[in-house]
Amino acid sequence: MPETEFATTLVVLDLVGIFVFAVAGALVAVRKNLDLFAALVLGGVTGLGGGFIRDVLIGATPPAALADWRYILVPVAAGLLTFVFHPTVGRLERPVALLDAFGLALFCVTGALKAVDYGLDPLPAALMGMVTGIGGGMIRDVLAGSVPVIFEGVLYATPALAGAAVAVLLDRTDLPLVVVAAAGFTTCLGWRLLAMVRGWRAPLPKGPANV
Amino acid sequence: MPETEFATTLVVLDLVGIFVFAVAGALVAVRKNLDLFAALVLGGVTGLGGGFIRDVLIGATPPAALADWRYILVPVAAGLLTFVFHPTVGRLERPVALLDAFGLALFCVTGALKAVDYGLDPLPAALMGMVTGIGGGMIRDVLAGSVPVIFEGVLYATPALAGAAVAVLLDRTDLPLVVVAAAGFTTCLGWRLLAMVRGWRAPLPKGPANV
Amino acid sequence: MPETEFATTLVVLDLVGIFVFAVAGALVAVRKNLDLFAALVLGGVTGLGGGFIRDVLIGATPPAALADWRYILVPVAAGLLTFVFHPTVGRLERPVALLDAFGLALFCVTGALKAVDYGLDPLPAALMGMVTGIGGGMIRDVLAGSVPVIFEGVLYATPALAGAAVAVLLDRTDLPLVVVAAAGFTTCLGWRLLAMVRGWRAPLPKGPANV
Repeated sequence: MPETEFATTLVVLDLVGIFVFAVAGALVAVRKNLDLFAALVLGGVTGLGGGFIRDVLIGATPPAALADWRYILVPVAAGLLTFVFHPTVGRLERPVALLDAFGLALFCVTGALKAVDYGLDPLPAALMGMVTGIGGGMIRDVLAGSVPVIFEGVLYATPALAGAAVAVLLDRTDLPLVVVAAAGFTTCLGWRLLAMVRGWRAPLPKGPANV
Repeated sequence: MPETEFATTLVVLDLVGIFVFAVAGALVAVRKNLDLFAALVLGGVTGLGGGFIRDVLIGATPPAALADWRYILVPVAAGLLTFVFHPTVGRLERPVALLDAFGLALFCVTGALKAVDYGLDPLPAALMGMVTGIGGGMIRDVLAGSVPVIFEGVLYATPALAGAAVAVLLDRTDLPLVVVAAAGFTTCLGWRLLAMVRGWRAPLPKGPANV
Repeated sequence: MPETEFATTLVVLDLVGIFVFAVAGALVAVRKNLDLFAALVLGGVTGLGGGFIRDVLIGATPPAALADWRYILVPVAAGLLTFVFHPTVGRLERPVALLDAFGLALFCVTGALKAVDYGLDPLPAALMGMVTGIGGGMIRDVLAGSVPVIFEGVLYATPALAGAAVAVLLDRTDLPLVVVAAAGFTTCLGWRLLAMVRGWRAPLPKGPANV
């Protein structure tokens, strides 16, 4: 695949990922009985928040999403659709979760590679990839008044970190970008799907907590 | 009005808006029985937080408020006065709400026009205007342990977005800046005051939520 | 002490401070029965979050912690150790609180002097010093679903602001940097330890709150 075609593909995939994340964010608003505006904001921060944190930290301001109207309209559309059709969307839990895993796998790779482009070393770049994947959901949960769901045993951040690390490490080889991205993507997606299917959980603390 | 006089007027209006927002923020701290420091911090983030988010996102760092001691002393003074005289200030609910609407109308316009100055397109610039108006209050509510009040039906963000949009669009015409700003300001203020008087609310989700 | 040796000493002290803050952050995760990932994230944001806020606001991006793997591995190690050995760590409340006061005193001084280096005036630079000291703990508490503990009477921010102010003011004299830093450090540490020993609290609002 030539580079420009790959770039176009990436933008399309990116927008799909933002759409899916925004649906998940707007569903949180609806389930807490919050208003239309909350659905749009929670949709927007879930879809774009991780990338915003990354861009602000690596100094890539204004973030790409503020320079391209498609990146704003996609989460708005997702929020509106979810708000109006939430009884239907809410029943699609399994497909939404699958698409969410797809978005996570995509964002951890694109986020990590963007951080590399901005001169970060492998370890912080992989961290930035993970932040791109999980940051939006964390802001969403805090704004909705909850402890982030990924703090309570859901195995979500580890696959993102793994996928980002694979992409960052392979990026230092001579492999073509498509292969690098695909390897990171597959690592994250596979791990996340296995965790969902097998019910893998992150470890909880053992023993009494001495509160 | 000559440009320099207009600039001075804007700074004065800006400081008044920050003062009023900071009073509202400090009142939240007092009503939650938090300490003096919380009153100062919640006052400060309510008054300055929206502008900080905007400046960090558009790359205008350090934010103007960190380069001008008046922008720091005004919310401190507002926080101290509110903490000490809160039984009196708390009774002034109606005038505080009116002044708050004034601050919202001001910030959405100045925020949007600053984003335009930093090269943002109309849609993201209008969003940044809305964020300038509502961002401080959202951080305040999250820090105080609440879901943002503007998520629960209060019609607050829509007038800010409308005012910002009007300012951004008219700014592309040949109209003088004073007229552009006044039109955006009036749009936001009028809509917000009507919403307060008529009890207009943002729509809530319909039907069962499939939690 | 020659300047380079002083710089090395500062990095070592900085890493110690981050380690201690990260232990405190991970303990919050364990006590809320959150998972390993939460311990790492809450440890990381407590140790690094204040500096991240400062760096983003003063335009020093990417933050130093993202350009140096030691700054990432130290909080990870602190989070892991705390997660595994939490029954022991949790019993060390007094030494952890002492080391935490040490970290606070260190961060308020280094944060304020960095802000001065980036051209901020004394008042905002002192504020940035305070934010460096207290910001990480505030993000930790919000992510863990609590109102920041420093909003509920704990005398923590005032010593940080005082230490930062002393450092910023003395930095305008001809005193050597070591003396400037030591004076600010001692001011904050002394005040904080006195507050702990004597049970000093920040003032709470008086009278009925007119909720």
